[in-house]
Amino acid sequence: MKIGILGYGNLGRGVEYAVEKNEDMELVGVFTRRDPSSVSPRSGAKTYHVDELENMKDDIDVLIICGGSATDLPEMTPKYAKMFNVIDSFDTHAKIPEHFSNVDEAAKSAGKIGIISCGWDPGMFSLNRLYSMSVLPGGKDYTFWGKGVSQGHSDAIRRIEGVKDARQYTVPVPAALDAVRSGKNPELTTRQKHTRECFVVAEDGADKEAITKAIVTMPNYFADYDTTVTFITEEEMKRDHSGLPHGGSVIYTGETGEGNKHVIEYKLDLDSNPEFTGSVLAAYARAAYRINQAGESGAKTVFDIAPAQLSPLSGDDIRAHYL
Amino acid sequence: MKIGILGYGNLGRGVEYAVEKNEDMELVGVFTRRDPSSVSPRSGAKTYHVDELENMKDDIDVLIICGGSATDLPEMTPKYAKMFNVIDSFDTHAKIPEHFSNVDEAAKSAGKIGIISCGWDPGMFSLNRLYSMSVLPGGKDYTFWGKGVSQGHSDAIRRIEGVKDARQYTVPVPAALDAVRSGKNPELTTRQKHTRECFVVAEDGADKEAITKAIVTMPNYFADYDTTVTFITEEEMKRDHSGLPHGGSVIYTGETGEGNKHVIEYKLDLDSNPEFTGSVLAAYARAAYRINQAGESGAKTVFDIAPAQLSPLSGDDIRAHYL
Repeated sequence: MKIGILGYGNLGRGVEYAVEKNEDMELVGVFTRRDPSSVSPRSGAKTYHVDELENMKDDIDVLIICGGSATDLPEMTPKYAKMFNVIDSFDTHAKIPEHFSNVDEAAKSAGKIGIISCGWDPGMFSLNRLYSMSVLPGGKDYTFWGKGVSQGHSDAIRRIEGVKDARQYTVPVPAALDAVRSGKNPELTTRQKHTRECFVVAEDGADKEAITKAIVTMPNYFADYDTTVTFITEEEMKRDHSGLPHGGSVIYTGETGEGNKHVIEYKLDLDSNPEFTGSVLAAYARAAYRINQAGESGAKTVFDIAPAQLSPLSGDDIRAHYL
Repeated sequence: MKIGILGYGNLGRGVEYAVEKNEDMELVGVFTRRDPSSVSPRSGAKTYHVDELENMKDDIDVLIICGGSATDLPEMTPKYAKMFNVIDSFDTHAKIPEHFSNVDEAAKSAGKIGIISCGWDPGMFSLNRLYSMSVLPGGKDYTFWGKGVSQGHSDAIRRIEGVKDARQYTVPVPAALDAVRSGKNPELTTRQKHTRECFVVAEDGADKEAITKAIVTMPNYFADYDTTVTFITEEEMKRDHSGLPHGGSVIYTGETGEGNKHVIEYKLDLDSNPEFTGSVLAAYARAAYRINQAGESGAKTVFDIAPAQLSPLSGDDIRAHYL
């Protein structure tokens, strides 16, 4: 199937790697709002200005939209669902119903599929929450993130005066993880679940005490957490913190019968958040194409897609080898 | 929806608990090959002889078949798929294609759904193998079982002369688990992955040395494993080993980009194997009923069922709260 990538940041590059790994996929090109000649995809894929998409309706089976959830996706996904099967990683939880509705209307009018909120959270984590609560109704679910880089929190630190660069790691509290895994069903505050570790490169002569205070007291981002701030050099930042690892666990605890406890854990340990997310998008792009070929249209999420649709193998093969 | 349970052993009792927990389900009755008056379901459900099923085609939406894979299910599931939506936990891996084909033919001819091989392995573990390999093609999957009671291995010990009772635990080797979780992709022999712990009550005057030797050298069951045998009293057996805990992990490791590693683990820690399996069957019974109502028929596995079909909640609700 023929894949287009819209947006060539970290996520777009992750999708590019994933498309190369899937032998049934071909990358038609990378689409950008920038000057296409300024973008050089690692794979040598062609680059086009985003405005070219309207002229390429027959050349692309699925358009993977790699934009930001704040402003890009609410506009882009419905727009392109009128022309292509599309898929995005929209992750603004409160606005998912509205986004779903907009994409649904656009995709249905065009007879296309639009899969939204795909990746690992929302995405694989959501699936595990749903499977667990369906199997063990009345249980309790916990989500822990990390250890991993939060780009939003890193950006928030970078906006503080005197900060040249910053990287923020979200770290689950081991004692909280242990308590949940033991099936104790603890009630946990925000502070008890995660800590935040910040690595900061300060401008020459900057007031480090003021920077630290600005970080640890920042509302929403840090004030509710135990936060540590470590000042490092630019070289150390580059050497030790250039990756984008992430991961976490969805843990569900439930009971059956006369007090029998069950603990279900789904755990991800990812060297590269954008490359793993891009890989999930590629697998669901396959599903989008297939269910559209089978006559379906409208907005979908990971909840609506039968797992077999993600695999390039036949039903016979997956039953024989993976069941 | 109206549920029938065929077979009232440990699994049937597990399904009975699960049906009670699901408010949209009603237990029509328990069906047995024994004299129905000799079976007293804990919930007070009605009991019927299995032959009554033919007269109750309109009274049952889904029949959950709780029989053994060796001889019961290959005969029962196709037979009752001609009358009802059915679901089973068939787990003889080599015969899944044949069983699928038989159930498919029967269910299609009747316009019914037959979900086979449902539970946790095959079942939830299979799902996680498929999701992981679809997202990260070319990776490696490992399955560890336990710590948990293997009923087949316990039965094998009980057949040895001089053995009054026995319980066998399958235990994953911690060093093997650690090596896999670290992303090292080790090649592991059977012996390196699991050990087997046997607790045996011997008959008075039995030759314990001979029993031990018979166990640890038993082909297929124990010879390929490091096996420990501990003799205990009947009281200790009853006090310490009356549960049927189980669980395990599916661990998948894959790479993206320039050598970025990812580890995905799905882990179950279950106090009661049959009650958890029964809970999975109940959730998929809901799906069987729904997709049949929507016009589908034929054999299905967990791979073919969209996750949303398992939940009693509406699509709007699961998107708003669990995505």
